[in-house]
Amino acid sequence: MTELTIPRTLRWKSGSGGCLELIDQRRLPGELKYIQCTTCAELFDAIVTLAVRGAPAIGVAAAFGVCLGLRTLADNASATEALENIEQTCRYLASSRPTAINLFRALERMQKKAQQLSYTMPNLTTASFKQALLAEAQAIEREDQDMCLAIGRCGQSLIPDGGAILTHCNAGALATAGIGTALAPMYTAHRAGKRFRVYVDETRPLLQGARLTAWELTHAGIEAILICDNMAASLMQKGQVSAVITGADRIAANGDTANKIGTLGLSIIAKFYDVGFYAAAPSTTFDMTIASGDQIPIEQRSADEVRLIQGVCVSPKEIAAVNPAFDVTPHENITAFITDRGLFGPGEIGRQGL
Amino acid sequence: MTELTIPRTLRWKSGSGGCLELIDQRRLPGELKYIQCTTCAELFDAIVTLAVRGAPAIGVAAAFGVCLGLRTLADNASATEALENIEQTCRYLASSRPTAINLFRALERMQKKAQQLSYTMPNLTTASFKQALLAEAQAIEREDQDMCLAIGRCGQSLIPDGGAILTHCNAGALATAGIGTALAPMYTAHRAGKRFRVYVDETRPLLQGARLTAWELTHAGIEAILICDNMAASLMQKGQVSAVITGADRIAANGDTANKIGTLGLSIIAKFYDVGFYAAAPSTTFDMTIASGDQIPIEQRSADEVRLIQGVCVSPKEIAAVNPAFDVTPHENITAFITDRGLFGPGEIGRQGL
Repeated sequence: MTELTIPRTLRWKSGSGGCLELIDQRRLPGELKYIQCTTCAELFDAIVTLAVRGAPAIGVAAAFGVCLGLRTLADNASATEALENIEQTCRYLASSRPTAINLFRALERMQKKAQQLSYTMPNLTTASFKQALLAEAQAIEREDQDMCLAIGRCGQSLIPDGGAILTHCNAGALATAGIGTALAPMYTAHRAGKRFRVYVDETRPLLQGARLTAWELTHAGIEAILICDNMAASLMQKGQVSAVITGADRIAANGDTANKIGTLGLSIIAKFYDVGFYAAAPSTTFDMTIASGDQIPIEQRSADEVRLIQGVCVSPKEIAAVNPAFDVTPHENITAFITDRGLFGPGEIGRQGL
Repeated sequence: MTELTIPRTLRWKSGSGGCLELIDQRRLPGELKYIQCTTCAELFDAIVTLAVRGAPAIGVAAAFGVCLGLRTLADNASATEALENIEQTCRYLASSRPTAINLFRALERMQKKAQQLSYTMPNLTTASFKQALLAEAQAIEREDQDMCLAIGRCGQSLIPDGGAILTHCNAGALATAGIGTALAPMYTAHRAGKRFRVYVDETRPLLQGARLTAWELTHAGIEAILICDNMAASLMQKGQVSAVITGADRIAANGDTANKIGTLGLSIIAKFYDVGFYAAAPSTTFDMTIASGDQIPIEQRSADEVRLIQGVCVSPKEIAAVNPAFDVTPHENITAFITDRGLFGPGEIGRQGL
């Protein structure tokens, strides 16, 4: 596959302790600018304020965040000190956002790696300990890229030549270390020469569809048509949507799926019109420790994100507003998951060895 | 019923040929300001740019618009000249917006009145002709106010004490000459001492919910909670919505209902969660000349309304966008119509003598 014509969401820079560079997604599409995170606190802030967002990208960023935390570890640190440093960083970063599972997965993996390494300290120097953890973060990044490619191969047959896909929020390259989850099949199909259009839900309140998905699809040369979230039903009623493909932030053992607010409604509308509804996600998004979606914590964000758009108040200033960042789509509404382990229905999750 | 604490959407001012004053709804909620229309062209512009909107309000405004058109009629005009003036005005105003039926109904009624009067000309002076047509416009206005009150009485029992209603767009006092259509049952129930909350869909692209409904409910002392359009499904999933009540722009003979874009999706979601879905409308919104919703013309508005919010571009500047202003909810999704002739299901429309 040729390189995408969109820049990488995150990149690690070595030298003087290391630095994680992130596209500042808050500024898109107006401005393409990287921010530098050299401390955990900077990364924490980048995650909370959505400079970096998207379940897989947050996971990868957090893994590198553990490496940033290690910058404060003394050269002659003991195994206990090293593990304390890691534990503290992980607890801190884990408190940034509650819903996407990839964040916790990545932090757990870094912690486990640190524990394994700690058994070999003090024979292992602090420098080597840091190096090994950086290698682990880079492995997480590489695996995420590979999973994106696999998701693309898995899902591309769902995109009919001449058809139209509807997507919600941004589950593209910007949301991962690679070519995205929901958008990966589109990139793969586009590369294979298929022609199709993508209806892009603007995705209120933070407009990730309008700002990010519209931007990255356009850069990749894929025909994108922006719609308001409430227009999807009208398109499906007219038979103008071949399939709906979204990302996922956490998938429970029974297939119930948390994703950006609005996904649930889309799934119900797709079911009503018998349009296939697919959630694309790497295997790291499945959380087999919870039986159903009821147990997925849903992040509640500030009411101001609803009352204000790009800083402009669009409602009476004092009006009450609710702002759940995610909703949970019941497994019955999901036609299949598009994953790096293949395409399978909610009833087949147990057999995937996740 | 005591006076609402919100100002009248439109008011006719006599003197020097007359003038129609309209709340400039484009400026709400920031500023409450009336604009003066003294010519048909000014009113046409006010309708097209949504300074005045809402199916019943457009109908009433257009009736007064016919009176504005008569300002250019010479004092000694013949019956033919008078009818030509009326016909020209009606054709012009009818081209302002295509979907809401009330506009055409009001213009037809004014035209019919003019025809009746013309038989008595030249015995009838031009001044008396103008006076009689103004009286007709005022009758249309008064009847709209009465129908709103009747809709309120009809629908108030659907609002459970302690419950929550979800509404879309603005079908309130601002959209009519009276207390609204969808909001009329809420005002009536509130006046009767019921306590309830209203979830207000912001209603992209033009945010009539956030700007207008949130504003008028708050002014009336009713608890309003603003949500993004894509949050409605999550609320219904959690059992937080007692009923959905929206307005209507045109209802076909079989009950298919055109209303603000997003209504269709809401109706599907309400059906999925077994939540009652009601369309509130005066009898003037029923169009018995068309069998089904397929025949309702849907206004397509500028893509810029999607790309820009309050003048700020929220997407790549050149992105394609579609912007249907309305969608059509199939009659199967409508629990009942709340009307001035009572509450009835789509299957009972034929028996209402509409």
